[in-house]
Amino acid sequence: MAAAVLQAVANLGNDHEQVVPITLFVAVLCLCLVVGHLLEESRWVNESITAIIIGCVTGFIILLISRGKSSRILRFNEELFFIYLLPPIIFNAGFQVKKKKFFQNFLTIMLFGVVGVFISASIITVGSWWLFPLLSFKGLTPRDYLAMGTIFSSTDTVCTLQVLHQEETPLLYSLVFGEGVVNDATSVVLFNAIQKIDVNRLDSRTVLRVVGDFLYLFTSSTALGISAGLLTSYCLKSLYFGRHSSVREISLMALMAYLSYILAELLRLSGILTVFFCGIVMSHYAWHNVTENSRITTRYVFAMLSFIAETFIFLYVGMDSLDIEMWKMTKLSFGTLIGVYGALIFLILLGRAAFVFPLSTLCNYMSKRTDRSSIVTLKHQVIIWWAGLIRGAVSVALAFKQYTYSGITGDPINATMITNTIVVVLFSTLVFGFLTKPLVRYLLPHVANSKASVLPKPRSPNEDITLPLISLEESTTTNLLRAKDSLSMLIGRPVHTIHSYWRKFDDAYMRPIFGGPNNGHSAC
Amino acid sequence: MAAAVLQAVANLGNDHEQVVPITLFVAVLCLCLVVGHLLEESRWVNESITAIIIGCVTGFIILLISRGKSSRILRFNEELFFIYLLPPIIFNAGFQVKKKKFFQNFLTIMLFGVVGVFISASIITVGSWWLFPLLSFKGLTPRDYLAMGTIFSSTDTVCTLQVLHQEETPLLYSLVFGEGVVNDATSVVLFNAIQKIDVNRLDSRTVLRVVGDFLYLFTSSTALGISAGLLTSYCLKSLYFGRHSSVREISLMALMAYLSYILAELLRLSGILTVFFCGIVMSHYAWHNVTENSRITTRYVFAMLSFIAETFIFLYVGMDSLDIEMWKMTKLSFGTLIGVYGALIFLILLGRAAFVFPLSTLCNYMSKRTDRSSIVTLKHQVIIWWAGLIRGAVSVALAFKQYTYSGITGDPINATMITNTIVVVLFSTLVFGFLTKPLVRYLLPHVANSKASVLPKPRSPNEDITLPLISLEESTTTNLLRAKDSLSMLIGRPVHTIHSYWRKFDDAYMRPIFGGPNNGHSAC
Repeated sequence: MAAAVLQAVANLGNDHEQVVPITLFVAVLCLCLVVGHLLEESRWVNESITAIIIGCVTGFIILLISRGKSSRILRFNEELFFIYLLPPIIFNAGFQVKKKKFFQNFLTIMLFGVVGVFISASIITVGSWWLFPLLSFKGLTPRDYLAMGTIFSSTDTVCTLQVLHQEETPLLYSLVFGEGVVNDATSVVLFNAIQKIDVNRLDSRTVLRVVGDFLYLFTSSTALGISAGLLTSYCLKSLYFGRHSSVREISLMALMAYLSYILAELLRLSGILTVFFCGIVMSHYAWHNVTENSRITTRYVFAMLSFIAETFIFLYVGMDSLDIEMWKMTKLSFGTLIGVYGALIFLILLGRAAFVFPLSTLCNYMSKRTDRSSIVTLKHQVIIWWAGLIRGAVSVALAFKQYTYSGITGDPINATMITNTIVVVLFSTLVFGFLTKPLVRYLLPHVANSKASVLPKPRSPNEDITLPLISLEESTTTNLLRAKDSLSMLIGRPVHTIHSYWRKFDDAYMRPIFGGPNNGHSAC
Repeated sequence: MAAAVLQAVANLGNDHEQVVPITLFVAVLCLCLVVGHLLEESRWVNESITAIIIGCVTGFIILLISRGKSSRILRFNEELFFIYLLPPIIFNAGFQVKKKKFFQNFLTIMLFGVVGVFISASIITVGSWWLFPLLSFKGLTPRDYLAMGTIFSSTDTVCTLQVLHQEETPLLYSLVFGEGVVNDATSVVLFNAIQKIDVNRLDSRTVLRVVGDFLYLFTSSTALGISAGLLTSYCLKSLYFGRHSSVREISLMALMAYLSYILAELLRLSGILTVFFCGIVMSHYAWHNVTENSRITTRYVFAMLSFIAETFIFLYVGMDSLDIEMWKMTKLSFGTLIGVYGALIFLILLGRAAFVFPLSTLCNYMSKRTDRSSIVTLKHQVIIWWAGLIRGAVSVALAFKQYTYSGITGDPINATMITNTIVVVLFSTLVFGFLTKPLVRYLLPHVANSKASVLPKPRSPNEDITLPLISLEESTTTNLLRAKDSLSMLIGRPVHTIHSYWRKFDDAYMRPIFGGPNNGHSAC
């Protein structure tokens, strides 16, 4: 059998170019699944680490079989990543998120995910601009430094989320998760905005233009995603597909979600943001318009696609890290390389600390007056800081976009930047990743102990206050009185109040058109 | 919005080569879904016809927008078809088939699906070899004629199956369905076998070699599929993935199925047969080893993937039919072309009639002595004949494989063969497809009337006889006596008896290892 496979591989060459790498990848993916399952209860390892290690081992074996030749089939292809692998991951994130918690902490999440990336990217850009020449690594252009700031500011929170649980530490989970998604989107959008800058004329207007570009992309992408989600919900509700076949319902949801992403990419918006909000809207409306079987299926099928795509990416990064040609091209001395890696890791640690702790303090100050339940303690801050240190697939994809042309580079400086990125990704995933479970266990002992010991959280009494501002059937006087109350509340607890208004509006106008649970108040 | 899209399309060009066609395809797929749903209760139209028509219209619009230039993005790519689109369709066929009926009619299905293709391909080859020069269409090589026989012998039964119902006419359904799958596999395997023939020395040894090749491919592909299915079932049962996550179970099933297909392709076996039997084994064992949610999800997710792939293919064929370059290249006169199309349609009708009626008579003669329930009446024979007249995606894919190089051809003869195939596919799908519902309604009025009127079928008394030949706990004498009974039965009703033995064996040895329903006798 093995001989037959080898012979077949040798024979095929040009004939079935795509078949060999696909077979290899699918086989290794299956292996990852089984190993990941067996290691599920391990204290140190998680799925990402397993996949990266298996990827490295596979890459090494291929290298041995091909006798040290680089195998072109295993080069990272950022188009594959952005067109096929990223959309299911982000859509599933939006589809499965607990919307209530997400929107209650919306301000904090946006501060971390947007302002944080700007701060971190600035620190990494300035720091590397100053440090790299000192380490005798020269030759990067200003645009390269700017891109580097963004590349190394995009976090990968998959690993940490495997340790935290939505039910046990809802605040922490929603902050880490929400920041992760917004951060992915922000770094891609910022990266694209930087590409348009005229680096020879860096002044305050440039900064303004980047910020303006960013805001435009952010709002238009979100609007597109919400529209796509609402359109799907409306179609499913009004045409009632389930009458004939559940298969069509599920297909329509999946295809519309993908369409929103790819349309956003076509219009040069941020597909990530679009598909994330499309996922939120679909789980809020469309999901309630389909048959029971379709509901179960969609929950699992989107999770499955996301899971496979994630594993695929980590495998890919693992295999790619042994791209021998890239390593040979680097002309720097060993000492310089170690210095550069150290500098990058230090800048990442610093850049993240520089926004997590100040912004948390700011948020705590804002919410201290009204809502003690959303205070971010110092322990939580440390976990948030740590959770975002891991660099993942988005970093690699952006690096390939910046420093290669169709996955190939002939320039030693660019090759070095690619290997730098891969080293940082491997180091952060393996070292920071290994330490995450112990750290969370140390800082939050009750989370790690057992799921059975979790007590039901005492509900904040404020949460139950309903604000019937838009109740149309009551007298004007009552409404005016209530509006006064509401107004004072709006000043005191802005996010919470907006959320309450939104729920009223949702029940009165949105759900009758786009669908939702029959009993009204259950979800977001 | 539309202007923005157009500008974006114009801008992108090389930048996001893949994004434009993907967006277009996904959008049109969504449209197909909605239109297909709205036309569900129509008397004439079915899903394939809808998709082909929408594809043609889209192709026409693109042609208008690009001002008559051919759009390269819409060329049929047979690698895409064989690597990504065909596997989910065939796997789902195996996964959803009613195994009991399928195996009870196994002999008939194999006669139609294997012997039938050989007969039909011979008639089409000989007929076109004789007719085409008379119609002044010359220049084809012997290999082209041989390939043509196979290309036009592969049926597309999707359309007919949308009219027949598994519950109402189980025999007819299982015959049409089973023949469809076996036929797909046979024509691809035969096509590959023909490629290896030395056409200059056509003698009886060549025929023997083709038959030998065919048998080798058939058995080894089936064995590979069964092994992959059993391995998955064993893994799922022994490791009990559902303990930690349903997502991993579902992913493993999907990935292993795909792995079996792609491995078969790598080993130059028939991926279609492999993945079909993998689907059967998985639904018989693996499906019972997973959580309840995973069962629902797998049922729908495989159906969904298959549905999307089918729609995609019909759209593709529809769009591709307007490939203007291909049409310009054809140098034949209009009269000759019409003659060639007519000849092909006639040969298809003849080739199919030449095996459906004789082979049905043969089957009826064989089973008349023992089992009256499996008699194929003349009406059924007409429906089976008609059901297989439609040519679909497999024909197009094989034609592109034979007559083009990466979807391009510079030769007028080859271009003509491609357009011939497309015309036959369009004509058969549209004309034969349109007439299928009325024909079935006319021949089998009770099927078309309403689902409520279906009476529960009287069960054949023979079906309930269990043959406890392998019951280990009984005395030898009893066993001997029963063995005698069984033996006489084996002669009388071979397939049925084998099936009974298989069930005994399955319950005693296979299910304890690979898993199955707890109550034992429910399924196959």
